Amino acid sequence: MTSRAPTQLSLPVHLPDDETFRSYYPAGNQQLIDSLRQAAAGEGETVTYLWGSGKSGRTHLLHATCVYASELGRSTFYLPLGIHASMSPAILDGLEDLSLVCLDDIDEVCRHPIWEEALFNLYNRVREKGTCRLVVSARAPANQAGFLLPDLVSRLNWGIHYQLHPLSDDAKLAALQRRAKMRGLDLEEEVGRFLMTRLARDLRTLFEVLDRLDKASMVAQRRLTIPFVKETLHL
Amino acid sequence: MTSRAPTQLSLPVHLPDDETFRSYYPAGNQQLIDSLRQAAAGEGETVTYLWGSGKSGRTHLLHATCVYASELGRSTFYLPLGIHASMSPAILDGLEDLSLVCLDDIDEVCRHPIWEEALFNLYNRVREKGTCRLVVSARAPANQAGFLLPDLVSRLNWGIHYQLHPLSDDAKLAALQRRAKMRGLDLEEEVGRFLMTRLARDLRTLFEVLDRLDKASMVAQRRLTIPFVKETLHL
Repeated sequence: MTSRAPTQLSLPVHLPDDETFRSYYPAGNQQLIDSLRQAAAGEGETVTYLWGSGKSGRTHLLHATCVYASELGRSTFYLPLGIHASMSPAILDGLEDLSLVCLDDIDEVCRHPIWEEALFNLYNRVREKGTCRLVVSARAPANQAGFLLPDLVSRLNWGIHYQLHPLSDDAKLAALQRRAKMRGLDLEEEVGRFLMTRLARDLRTLFEVLDRLDKASMVAQRRLTIPFVKETLHL
Repeated sequence: MTSRAPTQLSLPVHLPDDETFRSYYPAGNQQLIDSLRQAAAGEGETVTYLWGSGKSGRTHLLHATCVYASELGRSTFYLPLGIHASMSPAILDGLEDLSLVCLDDIDEVCRHPIWEEALFNLYNRVREKGTCRLVVSARAPANQAGFLLPDLVSRLNWGIHYQLHPLSDDAKLAALQRRAKMRGLDLEEEVGRFLMTRLARDLRTLFEVLDRLDKASMVAQRRLTIPFVKETLHL
């Protein structure tokens, strides 16, 4: 009951089992995927920096890399830095002992000197150790992400750098229709575009919704029309 | 080694022990603080909706409410929904059995139908149970946050609603100088403004930096001048 005791909670972070390399719509990022598979296997460059604006699939790829490394029996850690305010930078201590560390949205700690220094130190330990693969994601390239610490920026420039391009609406529609087809569902273009207009436009959400529509259409024995979709999703 | 087994990690979420009501610069939000203290004690309205743009201190207040409830020996749970992509909505199951649940940034799940439904169900269970206090935060009022599900919006409109106003730069400077003074440090206005220009402008970061400057100035036996600050923070 002391007023200074920090409250420590344990949050289950779940890597969705369907966010794998198999479910990633590559759209020209095949070289990146090969490189992430290497990192998951402990091969190739020590550090990889992925960047891309908005919902370009960074989280999916980091999840996929962790899932693949786990399948190979390797120790992994995934951390989304969007919640850094709820965590101590000490969470980065000792991560270099793992086989694979994926840090999502590292630009969330830009201009937070204590976090920038903790990242800088992690990079140094990872390189020194040599056995850990570190994959980080951000919305912008290392030089433009807004970090203060020049030594950190120089570390972020180590290794491999990839830019992810967000899928165009047409590519998203194609991915959605391909996914529907794999499930034996007929998703007309008009219905697909309706979903993309009304829901969060990332493929994760659209795929989740497709799963739900798949079940609902089986139960109701109805086709995926706009009225049926509206009714099912309360739109 | 099955490829479908979801990888489950446990992330330590740390509620900073210095993000309490005592360290909150109230600036006109005293009524809100009283109301959050009531929620932490299991009194007052069942649900509270806080909203405010940008870095208006939502996370600090949710942390403070949890810390205070813990001090009262009550069971709490804090969840930042910014990482919903790494979690299953099932994480909300059974939370109504706790004394206090704080969900930060709930608008991060707008237009994600599965999460919206999970939130809707949690609201219903919390109200039915009657013993749990639920405090949520978002960047906009419930009607304008962008939620799809009309039934969820009607639940979000239950209970108490507060708008947080971000501190003005002058108020931040005053808070920073007050904090420095409490530590026996003399923070000149010019130096304070320099920090606010160069670092992330939320008080959490500025306070962290002040702690670091405090230690560095003690070790180096130097005053907080701009050159000293630049050197210490690698700016």
